[in-house]
Amino acid sequence: MSELTRLDFEVMDKNDPLAEFRELFELAEGQIYLDGNSLGVLPKATKKRMQEVVEREWGQELIRSWNSSDWINIPRRVGDKIASFIGAKAGEVVICDSTSVNLFKLAAAAVKMNPGKRKIISEPGNFPTDLYILQGLVEFLGDQLELVTVPRDEIEAAIDEDTALVVLTHVHYKTGKLFDMDAITARAQAQGALMLWDLSHSAGAVPVDLNAAGADFAVGCGYKYLNGGPGAPAFLFVAERHHAQARQPLSGWFGHANPFEFSDHYAPAPGIERNLCGTSSVMASSALEVGVDIMASVSQQRLREKSIKLCDLFIELIETRCPEFTILSPRDSSERGSQVSMGHEQGYAIMQALIQRQVIGDFRAPNVLRFGFTPLYVRYVDIWDSVSVLVDIMKNDSWNCEEFKTKTAVT
Amino acid sequence: MSELTRLDFEVMDKNDPLAEFRELFELAEGQIYLDGNSLGVLPKATKKRMQEVVEREWGQELIRSWNSSDWINIPRRVGDKIASFIGAKAGEVVICDSTSVNLFKLAAAAVKMNPGKRKIISEPGNFPTDLYILQGLVEFLGDQLELVTVPRDEIEAAIDEDTALVVLTHVHYKTGKLFDMDAITARAQAQGALMLWDLSHSAGAVPVDLNAAGADFAVGCGYKYLNGGPGAPAFLFVAERHHAQARQPLSGWFGHANPFEFSDHYAPAPGIERNLCGTSSVMASSALEVGVDIMASVSQQRLREKSIKLCDLFIELIETRCPEFTILSPRDSSERGSQVSMGHEQGYAIMQALIQRQVIGDFRAPNVLRFGFTPLYVRYVDIWDSVSVLVDIMKNDSWNCEEFKTKTAVT
Repeated sequence: MSELTRLDFEVMDKNDPLAEFRELFELAEGQIYLDGNSLGVLPKATKKRMQEVVEREWGQELIRSWNSSDWINIPRRVGDKIASFIGAKAGEVVICDSTSVNLFKLAAAAVKMNPGKRKIISEPGNFPTDLYILQGLVEFLGDQLELVTVPRDEIEAAIDEDTALVVLTHVHYKTGKLFDMDAITARAQAQGALMLWDLSHSAGAVPVDLNAAGADFAVGCGYKYLNGGPGAPAFLFVAERHHAQARQPLSGWFGHANPFEFSDHYAPAPGIERNLCGTSSVMASSALEVGVDIMASVSQQRLREKSIKLCDLFIELIETRCPEFTILSPRDSSERGSQVSMGHEQGYAIMQALIQRQVIGDFRAPNVLRFGFTPLYVRYVDIWDSVSVLVDIMKNDSWNCEEFKTKTAVT
Repeated sequence: MSELTRLDFEVMDKNDPLAEFRELFELAEGQIYLDGNSLGVLPKATKKRMQEVVEREWGQELIRSWNSSDWINIPRRVGDKIASFIGAKAGEVVICDSTSVNLFKLAAAAVKMNPGKRKIISEPGNFPTDLYILQGLVEFLGDQLELVTVPRDEIEAAIDEDTALVVLTHVHYKTGKLFDMDAITARAQAQGALMLWDLSHSAGAVPVDLNAAGADFAVGCGYKYLNGGPGAPAFLFVAERHHAQARQPLSGWFGHANPFEFSDHYAPAPGIERNLCGTSSVMASSALEVGVDIMASVSQQRLREKSIKLCDLFIELIETRCPEFTILSPRDSSERGSQVSMGHEQGYAIMQALIQRQVIGDFRAPNVLRFGFTPLYVRYVDIWDSVSVLVDIMKNDSWNCEEFKTKTAVT
């Protein structure tokens, strides 16, 4: 390993079957973007698509675009495309709202399908909005439910007959640790619980097969690995077998069986559309569709192979060249998503120094440097170069100044 | 009246103090757009702003834009601007989610503030999503609440001590009828009920003064009179006196007091931000801001004066030149929003014929032709010309063909 040189990484790029995908994205010259797990990059095609949506569909066609530009079917159309790479069927996924709102809808629907059971199980340190939404739901329903958080290695044992719902994030946002979706789903269902997966850090990053796992519900983010743009609409999945029973409470008009009949009485759409609520942003949804189209055109298996190789190489270089960092992500790639997290007590300042040197990762309290490796556009030489920059920063203590130690609002 | 000619309307345009605002919008040559109450038109400045958000803020700055482009403060910043023209204070309004989602949040918060009272009062024929959301909320809470719909002239009498919440749309979407916000709010509060106004058809169309009326809560739409684009984020208002008590259940991370501390426990933000849920679309919110900036720069009183004049003239011309239509909107302008609705049993086909002739209104079942007059960009000659086209269509029966009678998905 220690004998590898930059040339070896250049050769890997030359032989990379996914290399051409990088051309589809806007990437600033000289910048190494390792934060696609927080905000994916801009697909070049999005610029033109947004102009078309703004200037022609809205500006010229105006209200007629609901039909002529098929605005009315965007949530389902983009949902079907996402379904194609997360192991769902057409008609089991829609895009709409935010991950948080969708989590509320599906968790609320799920607990009503399992009356009499008291527990919702999740893990401490889950992505905060997941826990917050579940807390809000439990509090809103009074004394009917309780949220129980259990460390990840005790979760399977904790799921019992009093468990209504298990909510877990497939790839952990901070450590990149990957749950065994099949095993936990099976365990939950064996106890009569429903299983809701948050795919925010896995859709487009690791292969997901919801139906092979028998998952009941899922939600996920549009602005990370799907490259849908800041605050892009999220997606939700409901297994077809639950479509008739799952009644989510945010029963807005876009979830109605006939929204443009303007009836006084809510009648849920028979299929996945009942999980829509109000009107979705056409611009935000159209931008997301461009990113989803790219993701739907690539082999998830090839993505995974490159992702593993990128992460493994990064870890090996860090261990060899920067041993002062503690690798927090699993070394076994089968237990890891498409990111590597590492700890250092000066992590915040070091990340600021990296960012100033055009290596963009992010920081999570208390001491975690996160690097996301999105195989669609990260090159092998980026691994070599980013570690080289880090080596240089550490050698010169160039993180050690006030500028890098002062925290900003969002990190 | 019958002696008016097109020249008189041209003179009115020449003397219109708001005439220059029309130049701020994209309006197709030869088209008369009378559907701003359904989807507002594209501000010219939005094109450039969207390009900037997509290409620079997202494309180049990427994740750093949360700070450098102040993405983090968009919901509050745009909310403060909306507050300036709906009689709210800075810090009482945010933009986020859809009208439907926001209605759920605030209705849910409100009923929890009034425990023990069973009724939510609304009116039959209210905008459907309002009723659907309230139905979803009532059903979700089991037997705690009931939704009671009461015809509008009986509402004040129906509000009693068992009423937790009254939810009404200030300007009716179909008829344009305007509620007396002050009187109904006072009546609700005298009985111990909370008052939630849906301003979707009034913000930017008629003067609104929420705090003068003492309103408790409000929601409203960003894509109608605010010209924020299709499916734009909505806004919500919570009177400052309720900020500490109102706990909405969709407690996502953007409503947290310190969202980027990534704590496991939800602590609501002290102010209006606690009503946020997940991440908002930056593109959709930025487009809305352009429309809101225009609206915040205009005198609401002047808008109202022109709106009344436009509607009055339209009604008078219809009565004189097209007496076969029944005016459904109030003739008294003090009881009317900025739209005129009229009935005709062939309304659907007539509207299709109008649209083909570039007069864009819309149709609402069973027989309602709706015309929205947005005084920012509708001219007085548009009134004359649109009625002239309608006269011609009726004289020649040109609506009477299969093409115009076949209904499309969205009308």
